[in-house]
Amino acid sequence: MTRYAYAYLGPEGTFTQQALMQWSPSAGGRQVPCGSVDAALELLRSGEVDAAVVPIENSVEGGVSATLDALASGDPLVVVGEVLVPITFVVCARPGTRLQDVSAIGTHSHAWAQVRGWADQTLPRAVYVPTLSTASAAKDLAEHPDDLGYQAAVCAPVAAERFGLEVLAHDIGDMTSAVTRFVIVSRPDWQPSPTGKDKTTVVLYQRTDRAGGLLELLEQFAVRGINMTRLESRPTKDSMGSYCFSIDFEGHVQDERVGAALMSLHRVCADLRFLGSYPAASGADITVDPITTDEAFLEARRWLERLRALGDG
Amino acid sequence: MTRYAYAYLGPEGTFTQQALMQWSPSAGGRQVPCGSVDAALELLRSGEVDAAVVPIENSVEGGVSATLDALASGDPLVVVGEVLVPITFVVCARPGTRLQDVSAIGTHSHAWAQVRGWADQTLPRAVYVPTLSTASAAKDLAEHPDDLGYQAAVCAPVAAERFGLEVLAHDIGDMTSAVTRFVIVSRPDWQPSPTGKDKTTVVLYQRTDRAGGLLELLEQFAVRGINMTRLESRPTKDSMGSYCFSIDFEGHVQDERVGAALMSLHRVCADLRFLGSYPAASGADITVDPITTDEAFLEARRWLERLRALGDG
Amino acid sequence: MTRYAYAYLGPEGTFTQQALMQWSPSAGGRQVPCGSVDAALELLRSGEVDAAVVPIENSVEGGVSATLDALASGDPLVVVGEVLVPITFVVCARPGTRLQDVSAIGTHSHAWAQVRGWADQTLPRAVYVPTLSTASAAKDLAEHPDDLGYQAAVCAPVAAERFGLEVLAHDIGDMTSAVTRFVIVSRPDWQPSPTGKDKTTVVLYQRTDRAGGLLELLEQFAVRGINMTRLESRPTKDSMGSYCFSIDFEGHVQDERVGAALMSLHRVCADLRFLGSYPAASGADITVDPITTDEAFLEARRWLERLRALGDG
Amino acid sequence: MTRYAYAYLGPEGTFTQQALMQWSPSAGGRQVPCGSVDAALELLRSGEVDAAVVPIENSVEGGVSATLDALASGDPLVVVGEVLVPITFVVCARPGTRLQDVSAIGTHSHAWAQVRGWADQTLPRAVYVPTLSTASAAKDLAEHPDDLGYQAAVCAPVAAERFGLEVLAHDIGDMTSAVTRFVIVSRPDWQPSPTGKDKTTVVLYQRTDRAGGLLELLEQFAVRGINMTRLESRPTKDSMGSYCFSIDFEGHVQDERVGAALMSLHRVCADLRFLGSYPAASGADITVDPITTDEAFLEARRWLERLRALGDG
Repeated sequence: MTRYAYAYLGPEGTFTQQALMQWSPSAGGRQVPCGSVDAALELLRSGEVDAAVVPIENSVEGGVSATLDALASGDPLVVVGEVLVPITFVVCARPGTRLQDVSAIGTHSHAWAQVRGWADQTLPRAVYVPTLSTASAAKDLAEHPDDLGYQAAVCAPVAAERFGLEVLAHDIGDMTSAVTRFVIVSRPDWQPSPTGKDKTTVVLYQRTDRAGGLLELLEQFAVRGINMTRLESRPTKDSMGSYCFSIDFEGHVQDERVGAALMSLHRVCADLRFLGSYPAASGADITVDPITTDEAFLEARRWLERLRALGDG
Repeated sequence: MTRYAYAYLGPEGTFTQQALMQWSPSAGGRQVPCGSVDAALELLRSGEVDAAVVPIENSVEGGVSATLDALASGDPLVVVGEVLVPITFVVCARPGTRLQDVSAIGTHSHAWAQVRGWADQTLPRAVYVPTLSTASAAKDLAEHPDDLGYQAAVCAPVAAERFGLEVLAHDIGDMTSAVTRFVIVSRPDWQPSPTGKDKTTVVLYQRTDRAGGLLELLEQFAVRGINMTRLESRPTKDSMGSYCFSIDFEGHVQDERVGAALMSLHRVCADLRFLGSYPAASGADITVDPITTDEAFLEARRWLERLRALGDG
Repeated sequence: MTRYAYAYLGPEGTFTQQALMQWSPSAGGRQVPCGSVDAALELLRSGEVDAAVVPIENSVEGGVSATLDALASGDPLVVVGEVLVPITFVVCARPGTRLQDVSAIGTHSHAWAQVRGWADQTLPRAVYVPTLSTASAAKDLAEHPDDLGYQAAVCAPVAAERFGLEVLAHDIGDMTSAVTRFVIVSRPDWQPSPTGKDKTTVVLYQRTDRAGGLLELLEQFAVRGINMTRLESRPTKDSMGSYCFSIDFEGHVQDERVGAALMSLHRVCADLRFLGSYPAASGADITVDPITTDEAFLEARRWLERLRALGDG
Repeated sequence: MTRYAYAYLGPEGTFTQQALMQWSPSAGGRQVPCGSVDAALELLRSGEVDAAVVPIENSVEGGVSATLDALASGDPLVVVGEVLVPITFVVCARPGTRLQDVSAIGTHSHAWAQVRGWADQTLPRAVYVPTLSTASAAKDLAEHPDDLGYQAAVCAPVAAERFGLEVLAHDIGDMTSAVTRFVIVSRPDWQPSPTGKDKTTVVLYQRTDRAGGLLELLEQFAVRGINMTRLESRPTKDSMGSYCFSIDFEGHVQDERVGAALMSLHRVCADLRFLGSYPAASGADITVDPITTDEAFLEARRWLERLRALGDG
């Protein structure tokens, strides 16, 4: 029997791998690192893996465009789970290097943006050397340090460990509460059951022939007491100023209020791509207005059916 | 076999009787004049008649409170049709009386308000004598003219004819386009079929514990492209400032967009009284936004059912 | 020097006179009873009196159309105050008459509607005789009882007293909390100062060329946190289904949030008739959202002026 | 006298330099390439240059986070102009290299995403080598081709020319209509005059204590007929799910309807950062609803002042 296989945004030693291990701690599955979000989702679409783990949102950097766009086009995929990973950076070097020996630091520009306060204070004269990823900064330092022009790398703890580097300072990010949200993506052949603490993700495309625009879409949530937790606008790539909206909101497609909102959006939008309902990582309770419970919807339906039944007489 | 019986707001010779004859010209049914709207609807509720004809709205005077309130409380009744009657007044007198002989005019105060322009110009010195109804002004003039203190009555053409009075001037109303809308009311044991040009009447009671109020109710129509044709606020009689809303809107309870709006209102309102769907008297076409046709709603439902079916896997 | 003069909806002995005495207890002014709301307001417009007192709203019957319509057209008038009068009815008769002697009761149909519960229980066999007003029922009973066909009148306490009748039963209304709201109307040559507990009355006419309609008007209040306390639709008398809206809301024209709402409505409406700002009779505190206080508006204006001043450079 | 100086997102040969030359074709000013958007804006804030040119939005990639975030924090800066630059890619190589010699292509990952269709069809076996920017791909190829592992670079036409490379194929982007929008940024000591075809940019921070959220903000534009042309949500960096909104809309801060919307947003938002009003690059006419013209606003203000003046009497 084949083991369950996960694709993830590699290389090894990234926060994404950490997310995967957090999602599936028993580590029973096969793990396939991929060079890009697109590559990971293509492995999933082609059936070579059973799920993919990719970042979707960072509390400092915002939405991850590559993921949003890859989910919004191509063969349908759905999100079946999410994981929140605190983003902590270490600065690490080859064994024996001391902090005072460091005159240049290599890392990805996103990571550099998040540790610059620490760097300005601790190593004010150190030069920044951009790299293609935090993990590659570490890997290159471990494998061929002489060509690089830097003596220390900023990366995830898991990368320092993976490549045998020594941590010179822990948790050096300026925003100590930084966190990245990863989603577990599947082919749309199953759906997590409602837990009462769920989220749903959709992509909405406006009709160009309708005034009102975004306001009209958001009202569909508001009139049903549904709370949005993320809104990203993404270009539709047709022309400058043409956007679609990637939205997370509280509730599950099997909930009545969510079903009603989705049906309305299906009518109002030029296109609506459903990207899944799944348990919220926070596990926080969702407050449902008494007038938007499942029972309130079902009672209203029964009432309408009684009114309409008069027509038979 | 019993003949079909109509109660109507009498006495004989009123515009309401005219409405009834306009609704059922073949005159096959029995006609029962009643002293008040309440009385007419009580005859209907008790089963003594099969339908009642009462005024609901006048283009000059506005909503007819007695009708609105009588429909909003008591055993349920439904509107099954409506008739528009142009309101034209005549001034009439006993045969032989000439206009120049008239020093006082009797009529109901509502009618007087609508002919005062004519009176000021034609009979500037004539005194106004209030009566209990336009028909009673005519009837009394015909039956015991000596006690009245007036020599001419302002009433409906049908009343002059009914009581054998001579018309001194036709169509004397200041608003020549004045029209009254009458409804045909039934017990809720049947419902007219949709014609595509229908109206629906409801009474909405707000929840006192919700901000937003009327705005929240009206949005339920607006988001579904439903056009309101009448809105009256009526006191709930609980306390000053506590109102319910009597509303007519385009569409039939069997229409999908109307069903959806009614279900939402049923959830949002403290109470919703359904007062019937019926063909609009105007016969004018209703413009339905392509995103709110029955087919658009049914397509959205089928789409949602496919999404939800994944949960079974 | 001329004494201050009030017109009021007479005759003497009505609830309106009671409202006037409640408004101006020292009774220093001259009181002029008028036969109709129109007549009272005409005396005011022509300068023969300084103010008029007329009913505008009843907790059982709703808005008083005659007043709403008379204020909405003709030369401008403004409301400068309001009074709430509890409506209590007495049944009274000529001295010596006992309750068991009463076989018929005279009163106005509105009053009869409000005491019918008492009548059904206490005098189930008594016949109802409609009269032109509650006061005239009492006056006629006092002055020429023989022609009337009734032995007891239902009227205001003040009328029984005024016409020397004996009260057979007090406070016989079915809704013991019934109350009527009266307004004190002036020519628009002064305006009460803001008290922090004020109301404002307007009449709004929609543009026929705008979709959205009433919703668009109500949003102007909602986005500024302004609470509506009364909404009446009234026909514009142009054609069936053409309505204007008579609205009371909390706040004074001198309040910033009210000024902002009025300016927006002035733009959005075909016409806006301002009918005055005046202290609320209830004296209840008005809750003002911190983002809609005068200071919040003025701070925003100063901030905008700083932004715009850049353009001078 | 010092020449006017522009900072721009370098290195030389980027689309940003092309934007700068498009904005200021006479090339009278000094041009200072910077390594990052942050660096360019810091030169501006510190007074070393007079303006900065940075990308803000791409029709394929969406908003440029670095720019949005750098404008939203730090010392205030304002946008004073915008330029639209069509994004066309060339593939280029050292003179003498032919397309069939190319086994690997270097470019930035964003550019690679936009030419992959062409690459798959024309050079299906070519390997992709990621570089730090499109310009550096070209520059490195020109200056030390032997270390690179690629024989051709994908970059802007201006870069091929700048570094003496030979263009092997023109306009190879998959989206031939791709365009990037650049903004010209200044210190807030001046403001372009209104042209009637302007745009305004703001960043809005929601109050955490208000329900309604984004909907409440967008309504402020909608009720004043103001059209939004871009909406980006950006994390506030406080915590996951805490967002601010970067918004472009039609109109100038000196326009009445824009001033009114900004004042309302100033009250409703926890914070509002004004990022400038400037002529729209498109030059397209803006449709202004007759009820939201400057004159309509000014007329409403005069009307209100007349109403309020009564209070003086």
